[in-house]
Amino acid sequence: MNGADLLCDVLLANGVDTCFANPGTSEMHFVAALDRKPRMRCVLGLFEGVVTGAADGYARMADKPAATLLHLGPGLANGLANLHNARRAHTPIVNIVGDHASYHLQYDAPLTSDIESLARPMSNWLGRVGGTDDIRDKAEQAYVSAVMHPGISTLILPADAAWSAATDQTIHPVRVPDRPQADSVMVRKAASALRGARGRTALILGGDAMRADALETAGRISAGTGAALFTDRTARWQRGAGRVSPTPVPYNIDLAIAAFREFQTVILVGGRIPVGFFAYPGKPSVLLPEGCAVIDMAGPEHDLKEALALLAEETGTSDTAPTGISAFTASALDAPEGALDADAISIALARVLPEGSIICDESITSRGRLAAVAPTMAPHDYLPITGGAIGIGIPLATGAAIACPGRKVVALQADGSGMYTVQGLWTQARERLDVLTIVFSNRGYSILKGEMRNVGVNDFGRNARRMLEIDDPTLDWCALANGMGVEAARAETAEAFVRVLDEGLSRPGPFLIEAMI
Amino acid sequence: MNGADLLCDVLLANGVDTCFANPGTSEMHFVAALDRKPRMRCVLGLFEGVVTGAADGYARMADKPAATLLHLGPGLANGLANLHNARRAHTPIVNIVGDHASYHLQYDAPLTSDIESLARPMSNWLGRVGGTDDIRDKAEQAYVSAVMHPGISTLILPADAAWSAATDQTIHPVRVPDRPQADSVMVRKAASALRGARGRTALILGGDAMRADALETAGRISAGTGAALFTDRTARWQRGAGRVSPTPVPYNIDLAIAAFREFQTVILVGGRIPVGFFAYPGKPSVLLPEGCAVIDMAGPEHDLKEALALLAEETGTSDTAPTGISAFTASALDAPEGALDADAISIALARVLPEGSIICDESITSRGRLAAVAPTMAPHDYLPITGGAIGIGIPLATGAAIACPGRKVVALQADGSGMYTVQGLWTQARERLDVLTIVFSNRGYSILKGEMRNVGVNDFGRNARRMLEIDDPTLDWCALANGMGVEAARAETAEAFVRVLDEGLSRPGPFLIEAMI
Repeated sequence: MNGADLLCDVLLANGVDTCFANPGTSEMHFVAALDRKPRMRCVLGLFEGVVTGAADGYARMADKPAATLLHLGPGLANGLANLHNARRAHTPIVNIVGDHASYHLQYDAPLTSDIESLARPMSNWLGRVGGTDDIRDKAEQAYVSAVMHPGISTLILPADAAWSAATDQTIHPVRVPDRPQADSVMVRKAASALRGARGRTALILGGDAMRADALETAGRISAGTGAALFTDRTARWQRGAGRVSPTPVPYNIDLAIAAFREFQTVILVGGRIPVGFFAYPGKPSVLLPEGCAVIDMAGPEHDLKEALALLAEETGTSDTAPTGISAFTASALDAPEGALDADAISIALARVLPEGSIICDESITSRGRLAAVAPTMAPHDYLPITGGAIGIGIPLATGAAIACPGRKVVALQADGSGMYTVQGLWTQARERLDVLTIVFSNRGYSILKGEMRNVGVNDFGRNARRMLEIDDPTLDWCALANGMGVEAARAETAEAFVRVLDEGLSRPGPFLIEAMI
Repeated sequence: MNGADLLCDVLLANGVDTCFANPGTSEMHFVAALDRKPRMRCVLGLFEGVVTGAADGYARMADKPAATLLHLGPGLANGLANLHNARRAHTPIVNIVGDHASYHLQYDAPLTSDIESLARPMSNWLGRVGGTDDIRDKAEQAYVSAVMHPGISTLILPADAAWSAATDQTIHPVRVPDRPQADSVMVRKAASALRGARGRTALILGGDAMRADALETAGRISAGTGAALFTDRTARWQRGAGRVSPTPVPYNIDLAIAAFREFQTVILVGGRIPVGFFAYPGKPSVLLPEGCAVIDMAGPEHDLKEALALLAEETGTSDTAPTGISAFTASALDAPEGALDADAISIALARVLPEGSIICDESITSRGRLAAVAPTMAPHDYLPITGGAIGIGIPLATGAAIACPGRKVVALQADGSGMYTVQGLWTQARERLDVLTIVFSNRGYSILKGEMRNVGVNDFGRNARRMLEIDDPTLDWCALANGMGVEAARAETAEAFVRVLDEGLSRPGPFLIEAMI
């Protein structure tokens, strides 16, 4: 047994049995070790942004971390943007980065770089294996930190630690402590605020508070106290008919400020103080009105389901019927007709989305009416982009599908963002994943065209057009998908979209719809 | 005039008139400023790895820096791998990274990250604009450092510095000091070594020492002193018939060690001490034999052409006829026939490559006989991957073509690496660039399969195959190219390749050949 074998054994003992990878020479001993462990499922991404984004999607749905395997600083760098999103999602990932043999670093070989400096901004836990004696401890620390905080643990594995002989040993799973309870003082403070100002208190939910059972409790509290429920880019939202539906904080800063205008107190239950996604001249950074109190009751590291149960108890709402639950009425919507646009697509999807589907949403400006009709759709899991780093949609869907065989994954993909990690379609084909990708082909960075108007530019000159339009040449998404082994169809009208959507949903395996909007 | 205008003016005043970009909301004021400066050529990449790789290719050929424009930490992160390559190439780049407004950072909005930590490993110079008063000075520092050292200057531009009013001012170009001369003591030391041990001294050339005129001088020194000439992944090598041809340091560690076995002294003239690309158990890191002396005569920051002239003078070889120059005989090679492989492709290309072409080489294991026949090919510039971070080929060719309209660019592209930044094909189509891309479709990470055998694994199990093969599904490069607006053809035999190569070379504009090897 060498160091690489030992690391694999620690991962497997703790249930980390999926490794998203794009290895290189310095990781060959680890690859050889993985090859000796058929229990580990190795999934190749043809670019590291696919690897890390898939690890994010996997853990959001599997409720346990995957491992990644990245090749030195540059391989890590390629995966950082989606690690950024995963960090914002509080997704547990054991992020393994190979490095040169420790004695080789001093010679500054071509692929050498400061891996720690690159990894630190996206990592909750960061460590470097010193030698084989050290692997078990460091790997267990990385795993426990990833699960507990939860977030990204980056473990740097020098090649000589991987290839050196390790002592044979039996590896047992580490005991991960239960998530801590919310502080009872804070719960009482929150309860007091809820009792004090009916209709002027909001709960901002995030993390596990967005699971169906926790949401039901939040709905009881809302019904009993008049509290509003909000959420802001939560990793995983169990949404749809029969479930309590918080209001998403709007991206548009004016709408976001308006949404909070009336509140005296916000209570954070896994959520964050709402701030502007960007700063705008003359507009505030914090979206809450002046004097609005903030009670940070519980964060993503707490047992949020229990935190809400305690709050319900404290407010005497444990048995109140929850508000904000809709029936499954989307199926009765009329099929859209005529021109194809984001609204038509969202309605078409809302009608037929299978129960238990997983929606991965990187539709950006093309969300259409999806948020509005979501509470009336069949129950589903909703995975949005959490950190604003585009290029998460296709990888996220890939990882979610690996975590949940038997469930349909629908990726809502803006075209500009989709090009960032388009390579993920190949992994979907290789792994025969049941992913339906809907590409919103609007042939531009539409969000930026809006932002240019926000900064006062209405007539775009050549340079602005050259940076905000992607229409010369137009992308042929069907050709791109076919080139990576994914079947595809184009829809130019609502009727055609309804037809190909039925086709895409009825067949297993990856399929892509290029929706010309 | 606002801060963004001022920054554009400083760039333009110093001849930085090309900006490779993928901006976001925090850069909208900069985009608006660029829109008011039609002299600036803005080139969009659909992924930041394309942006930074193109900036590398551009500066290698234009001999001046381009600017980049990247969107906060995640946008920078996506561009880091090719910045790593550019750093190893000593390529000047003014790398502009937008950030949130300074006062907004404290709220840790979703896209916030530690940009400095991400940028530092790849940057020779790193600065953050404090306010509009500060922009001119910082921008000039960034430019001067990029040109002088040479390397990457990362300038972080907070949105509020971009949008705030700046004092109207006339911007003059900054005076960049001439490159320093090599230390005369070191030159004499090198000359003494060259005189001392005929045939047992090697010059390792890099940077501008690999331009045709400097190489001619190196050839004179070699002829007069018996010195061997080596080079190791130089940014730009002026190569081909009529030019002096140093020997590339082999990638394979055993071959590299053998190449240096006989030397008593190596003299660095823009090159580096040869070290293993990777470490291997039981093999040395430094490739020089024990006791071999190293004379670091001049680095990439020096005037290397002049350094070689001084060395020639000191060794009395200024008028010696240079060795190692071949005639243009590749055109007389027989056209390859039969099965298509890397050898056949290299010979087919060697026969017909137009004079003045630019070869961007990310062929990895598919180089075939190209290095062997290169000295007999029509004179051309050769741009290799310098830092080992794959995904440079397509972007590099894109940038080189923008720098050199009227010259044919030939990208030799391995398939695994090509997928990393495949989005660059779209920029080639948009900008109507005269790039011929040859994809070596071997449907695997062949270099890694060799490395697995090096670590003793000859029979690959499922996990190894799943990480090293990319044949299930096979990539259809013609479909991928067409999907981004680039015409393409497939060749399965040597005869077919010769035919489509003629077609690709005879037409302007981007074209891709999928060579099934």
